[in-house]
Amino acid sequence: MWDAVTPEASRRMLAAAVDAFAERGYHGTSTRQIAAAAGMSPAALYVHYRTKADLLYRIAERVHVSVLETLSAAMQDVDGHPERIRALMYAFARWHARHHHAARVIQNELGALEAGHARKIAALRREVRTLLRDAVRAGAAAGEFDVADVDGTSRALASLAIDVCRWYRPDGPRTPDEIGALYAHLALRMLRAD
Amino acid sequence: MWDAVTPEASRRMLAAAVDAFAERGYHGTSTRQIAAAAGMSPAALYVHYRTKADLLYRIAERVHVSVLETLSAAMQDVDGHPERIRALMYAFARWHARHHHAARVIQNELGALEAGHARKIAALRREVRTLLRDAVRAGAAAGEFDVADVDGTSRALASLAIDVCRWYRPDGPRTPDEIGALYAHLALRMLRAD
Repeated sequence: MWDAVTPEASRRMLAAAVDAFAERGYHGTSTRQIAAAAGMSPAALYVHYRTKADLLYRIAERVHVSVLETLSAAMQDVDGHPERIRALMYAFARWHARHHHAARVIQNELGALEAGHARKIAALRREVRTLLRDAVRAGAAAGEFDVADVDGTSRALASLAIDVCRWYRPDGPRTPDEIGALYAHLALRMLRAD
Repeated sequence: MWDAVTPEASRRMLAAAVDAFAERGYHGTSTRQIAAAAGMSPAALYVHYRTKADLLYRIAERVHVSVLETLSAAMQDVDGHPERIRALMYAFARWHARHHHAARVIQNELGALEAGHARKIAALRREVRTLLRDAVRAGAAAGEFDVADVDGTSRALASLAIDVCRWYRPDGPRTPDEIGALYAHLALRMLRAD
C-alpha cells in the first residue's frame, strides 16, 4: 500500500506516524516523536509534511485510495451480479485484514481530520459505499438478490468488511484470504444470492 | 447505562471522561481536563478515581457489563434457536446504536487499558462472544441453522453489531430499533434460518 508514496523518506515518515498514532493516539503524539521514530530531525520531517494534521491526512488518503483501487481491480472483468458481490466482499474484507494496522488508526482518528481534509476523505468513502451499493442495487433490480433495504444492507456489508481491521490479529486462526472467502459467502447469503 | 454508577459525582466524572476521550483520545487527555469538564477540582476527582487508567477501566467495565446484561435479558424466556438469534442480534445491534458514544470510545481505547484491567475486560468480552457462539452452535447442532464455520460466523455476527457504534449517527436515517430489526433479519440469513 505504501509503495505509491515517494520518496522513501516520505514513506518512512508515514509509517512512523501510523505506529505512533496506533500507540498513543493522534492527539497524544507530537511531530517531534514521529520524527524521532523515523530517525530524522523535526526540520527534515517539516520538509515533507508541514503539520501533524498533514501527516494524518496523507495516511487517510493513501488508505482510502488503496481500498478504492483494490475494489475497482476486484470488479474488473467480473460478470454476473453474485460474482461481483463475491469479488467485492472478498477483496474488501481481505484488504482490512492485510492492512489492519493503518486501517484501524484511520478509523479511530477520522474525527481528528481538519475540515478541508475531512471533506476529501468523506468523498473517497462515499465512492467506496456507492460502489458496493450499486452492485447490490443492480443485482436486486435484475431479480437475482432478494433485498428489501438496499441502503441498510449495503451499509451492513461495508461495516462487516471494515470492522475486520478492529479485531484481526496476524496470529489469529484465519488468514486474510480465509476471512475474505467466508465474508464473500456470508454476503451472498445476506442478499439471498447463494 | 450509567444509572448503576453511584454516587452522582462518580457518574458525572465518568461521563466527562467519556466526552474528553472521544474528543482528544485517552493519551491526549489529562485528569485535570476531566475534572474541569466535570466541574470539579483534581483533588475531588482523585477521591473517586485514583488515576486516568482507573477511569478508563471503570468506563470499559460499565460498557461491557451493560452489554452482557442486555444480551442475557434479551434471551430470557425466548424459546427456539432462530428466535434466540433474532433476540440477541436485535439487542446487540440496538445497544451499540443507543450507546454509540461510549462504545466507540471504549473500542478505540481498549489498547490503553493497563494489563490487569485488560484481562478483566477480556474476560467480559469472552462471555459476550461465548453467548453468541453457543446460540449459533446449538441451532446448528439441532439442524436448524446451516453453518460450516461456527466460530467465524459468530465472530462476524458480533463484529456486525459492534461496528454499529462506529458509523451510527443519531440524525441518520434509521433508529436503533430499525437497525436492530434489520440486523436480526440479516443474521438469520447468514445462518440460513430465515
